[in-house]
Amino acid sequence: MRICVVGCGAVGSLFAAHLSLLEDVEVWAFDLNELHVAAINRDGLRLSGAGEVVGHPRGTSDPAAIPPCDFGIVATKAMHTGPAIAATAHAFAEGCVATVQNGLGNEETLAEHVEHVIRGTTFPAGKLLEPGHVQWDVKGDTTLGPYDARTPTAEVERLADACTRAGMPAEAVDDARGPQWLKVIFNASTNPIGALTGLTHGRVCERPDLRALVTDLVDEGKAVAAAQGIELDADPEELIDHAARRDVAYDHKASMLQDVEARRPTEVDYLNGGIVRFGREGGVPTPLNSAIQALVKGVEASWTES
Amino acid sequence: MRICVVGCGAVGSLFAAHLSLLEDVEVWAFDLNELHVAAINRDGLRLSGAGEVVGHPRGTSDPAAIPPCDFGIVATKAMHTGPAIAATAHAFAEGCVATVQNGLGNEETLAEHVEHVIRGTTFPAGKLLEPGHVQWDVKGDTTLGPYDARTPTAEVERLADACTRAGMPAEAVDDARGPQWLKVIFNASTNPIGALTGLTHGRVCERPDLRALVTDLVDEGKAVAAAQGIELDADPEELIDHAARRDVAYDHKASMLQDVEARRPTEVDYLNGGIVRFGREGGVPTPLNSAIQALVKGVEASWTES
Repeated sequence: MRICVVGCGAVGSLFAAHLSLLEDVEVWAFDLNELHVAAINRDGLRLSGAGEVVGHPRGTSDPAAIPPCDFGIVATKAMHTGPAIAATAHAFAEGCVATVQNGLGNEETLAEHVEHVIRGTTFPAGKLLEPGHVQWDVKGDTTLGPYDARTPTAEVERLADACTRAGMPAEAVDDARGPQWLKVIFNASTNPIGALTGLTHGRVCERPDLRALVTDLVDEGKAVAAAQGIELDADPEELIDHAARRDVAYDHKASMLQDVEARRPTEVDYLNGGIVRFGREGGVPTPLNSAIQALVKGVEASWTES
Repeated sequence: MRICVVGCGAVGSLFAAHLSLLEDVEVWAFDLNELHVAAINRDGLRLSGAGEVVGHPRGTSDPAAIPPCDFGIVATKAMHTGPAIAATAHAFAEGCVATVQNGLGNEETLAEHVEHVIRGTTFPAGKLLEPGHVQWDVKGDTTLGPYDARTPTAEVERLADACTRAGMPAEAVDDARGPQWLKVIFNASTNPIGALTGLTHGRVCERPDLRALVTDLVDEGKAVAAAQGIELDADPEELIDHAARRDVAYDHKASMLQDVEARRPTEVDYLNGGIVRFGREGGVPTPLNSAIQALVKGVEASWTES
């Protein structure tokens, strides 16, 4: 089988490197970072940290070079989903395309370009250290499910099986919205609070006023999920408190805080903005998520002159 | 008559310099900034900008040096009200003490130390340029009213008359809560949005998402005021839009943004925090003001290690 990872930042590289270890899988790694692609083709794609892996996917920055594939795994930042799938859709005319991205709305964007879409949520994380080399910070599971009835269940299972055999444990389920919304609510309720205050996850959680705000944001997200009939796999509150432990992620700066410190656009429109949009569609008010989204967009605007 | 201005930053200096021009008023300027006090005593207290004034109040940093006064005018930052009045209350045993500070709760704090309290709201603004020299940015009116029945109306009128004669127009009213809440709602709904995003007042107002958040904050403040039977003199929305004009205060960085950039404690507990407290007492929910207060306190916390 042939798989193309679309967007080989940290998360995409975890999938590409692992899957390329399998004898029965040919892996393509598509990324616009030409230095990263050149390093992959010269020395392989190296992961270090939570595990040591050197994979040998075929790297390219040219979408026309990607041959027809059985699967795509899209791992770009959420704001790049549209251009990324528009450029690569030709390779997936007969295949299925899975998103393992953050936030809400990526499936809808993919479905505008390809027929068979797989909703995915993944917990492993890392960061690109240098071209060809990714630090693997966190191990974790991936959940995959069909976006709609057009996606064959057997294909979802085939992709999950390949990931699992490659060392990235994945489960195929009928409805992947539960884990997806769990992760989105977790991220939307904590990431922007770190980004707006400059505090680590642990320090956000130990301030009663901010922890109460996190809970209010979680409650809005839960209500929006419930209105769609989505059952969360776990209570986001438990994940949030677990992550705040000193031996887990107390000192972790949320990715959105890292983005703000580096003055990069954030994913807030796909996190809080996604909750607001689904809330509006379902008639569930989300005033706090709206406020947080507006504040983070304001921070982004402050980096440019009026 | 003898008046002591307690806290001679920008606003306090505007009052002290003007009042000292009157033949029938002896003015004391109390401030802990010894360089400022020394400059006042050596060269006088100079205002420049909206008007040119050189006054000659008697400066001191020693509360014991203040003689018995007819009036106090407290103009410290709101978080310093308690210590400032505790140190100076002896001078006002027979007098009345007016607050011209930002925020809610200053009258209550003064009333714990002195018997006759005057609630005041003032719109003039400026900034301390150097010891003895204040830039006078904005002219404006002051409104004074008795805090409770113990404060003689005639004394409120006597202080308002002195301010007006000195060039700081002031009006004595029966209930000064209308202008006070108007200013508090204006400040609480705009200042922290600038502080959290880094945007000027005009840029906050031209973003529809942030302008909507400002309106939601205003609406909470209006509801809390209404529950107490307070009638605002004007609609805060009109003031906010007026100030956003390019020929008014489009490029103004809110004082709270200036505080955040200089890593100084902000007055958020007396602005949004005051609205939250009165809301709780009146049974009016204020979730957005709570959220904003928590975020700004989080920013302040980020300046210190955990």
